[in-house]
Amino acid sequence: MVEPADADAKQLAERLLAGDRRALARAITLVENGDPAGWLVLRSVYPRTGATAVVGFTGPPGAGKSTLLAALTGLERAAGRSVAVLSVDPSSPASHGALLGDRIRLADHFLDDGVFIRSMASRGALGGLSEAALYALLLMDASGRDLVLLETVGVGQAEVDVATHADTVVLVLMPGAGDSIQALKAGIMEIPDVIVVNKSDHVQAEATVRELKAALALGGLRDGWQVPVLRTCATTGEGVEELRATLLDHHRDAQVSGTLAQRRRGRLRMAVLGLAALELRRRFEAAIDQDPEVEHLLEQVAARELDPASAARALLATLDARARPS
Amino acid sequence: MVEPADADAKQLAERLLAGDRRALARAITLVENGDPAGWLVLRSVYPRTGATAVVGFTGPPGAGKSTLLAALTGLERAAGRSVAVLSVDPSSPASHGALLGDRIRLADHFLDDGVFIRSMASRGALGGLSEAALYALLLMDASGRDLVLLETVGVGQAEVDVATHADTVVLVLMPGAGDSIQALKAGIMEIPDVIVVNKSDHVQAEATVRELKAALALGGLRDGWQVPVLRTCATTGEGVEELRATLLDHHRDAQVSGTLAQRRRGRLRMAVLGLAALELRRRFEAAIDQDPEVEHLLEQVAARELDPASAARALLATLDARARPS
Repeated sequence: MVEPADADAKQLAERLLAGDRRALARAITLVENGDPAGWLVLRSVYPRTGATAVVGFTGPPGAGKSTLLAALTGLERAAGRSVAVLSVDPSSPASHGALLGDRIRLADHFLDDGVFIRSMASRGALGGLSEAALYALLLMDASGRDLVLLETVGVGQAEVDVATHADTVVLVLMPGAGDSIQALKAGIMEIPDVIVVNKSDHVQAEATVRELKAALALGGLRDGWQVPVLRTCATTGEGVEELRATLLDHHRDAQVSGTLAQRRRGRLRMAVLGLAALELRRRFEAAIDQDPEVEHLLEQVAARELDPASAARALLATLDARARPS
Repeated sequence: MVEPADADAKQLAERLLAGDRRALARAITLVENGDPAGWLVLRSVYPRTGATAVVGFTGPPGAGKSTLLAALTGLERAAGRSVAVLSVDPSSPASHGALLGDRIRLADHFLDDGVFIRSMASRGALGGLSEAALYALLLMDASGRDLVLLETVGVGQAEVDVATHADTVVLVLMPGAGDSIQALKAGIMEIPDVIVVNKSDHVQAEATVRELKAALALGGLRDGWQVPVLRTCATTGEGVEELRATLLDHHRDAQVSGTLAQRRRGRLRMAVLGLAALELRRRFEAAIDQDPEVEHLLEQVAARELDPASAARALLATLDARARPS
């Protein structure tokens, strides 16, 4: 017998697979909220994922990522390809409106059915945003979009985590962005697949490109691919066609070399282990909830009689002893 | 018999308790790196913690938190009290130098033995920064500082997590910061204990104070304490003495009402449970490492035959079946 929730999810999944924008939006909301119906939809559509390229854009605020994304989307649309855009802001606590400024830059595409735009911001959920972004990307993929663009704000660890969901990672810098170059050199920033110096009309653009190429000379290969440094001017569209061609090149190269399959395997692995770990954490919290022995340990810590690490060890020993048959 | 590592940690702990700055710096580095010796030091000094007030400063970049911190530190020093400052930047991937700009603002105090300054940035460690900050604060507390100041950069969830380590939370805003007021109104931002409108010479300062008071009129009580809205000008020192008095007031109030003990209990609880959960995660990762059954599940996910959530469930069922005696 099919449960009503199952039937609803099935119908939503079918509409999503048929390319229905509203079904896609609804399904993303469901997985974002951790709604079981979202998992049902994802389960249904999952076999139909994997065909779409996901290109991620990262880099410091103000580098012009959103404008570049809008320009690239324009070219894709002119070529008759449909696009989905996911904007993720891990540093913002608000769920809606946080990326309004960025979305406005995509306003040209708001009325175009061939472009689906979605924002996501941190909701403080345990292990939440990066996973929610991955599921949203899978749903976008299943909905038959020809290209999925992922944009992250900032260059912190949370952004790096999200950027790893992309098949191709583009680092967008502005001329004179010395900090980013230092970070690349120091190996703090993971090497992207493509580097773009945007605002190429800036007086320092040429020097920045040169500096980046010098920084990459020591380690510009990523998975056998020579990381190119491109110049764009997103506002005039200069260099964006070349960027588009480079993205296609990288996707083909990654397909042939096996890098694509390997990266996807890696992130799906992380997703599965993350979900399992989350469930273990839930079980752990249920096991200790209002447990008198655990409360006693915590009281000792509050009274400064027992330090936190020793208390954690004692807590686990208590749980282990209970799990073992006596 | 005492192990050599134990003896070293014991000695370090003794120097720390005696107020030795270098011992404090070394101990923080050890806990930051997850070094077992760090835990030994923390265990030794833990009974001596709890006497120091921890005041946290949060708010958007550019509001002048660091300048305010420096001004407050100056007043504390003039009153003969010793200070420790912990600056935490969850959005920065670099460990050192990330907060150099802020530290420069504290440069007046660099040569003063009565002021200990430390920066911490995200190192991408699993569940790392917030915990590392808590242990650093405990070590600063144990070292006999009269006041510990905690500064976070930004207003994201990671910053909020860190800010909860403080006994008193000060939200520093600049005049005209409409977004922050909106966030307060919408209940997105947790209500702080004290709100400071810095740069009070700004033309919009008065209006911002009025707007904040109006926003708080509906819910300006926090744990029975009426949240005050103060005006400061950190560069001239105006209003900083009043802020200092307010911080002392809040600490006394929280002590009398029991809020202080309750908050500290809450965060120590989180620390213990976080450490236990981290160890469970480590065990989980060891249990699945190179396990053929788990690898088979992951292969099915990569082949799009099994969705991530179903695979996670199957994985846990496998582990559960093994743990149970057959």
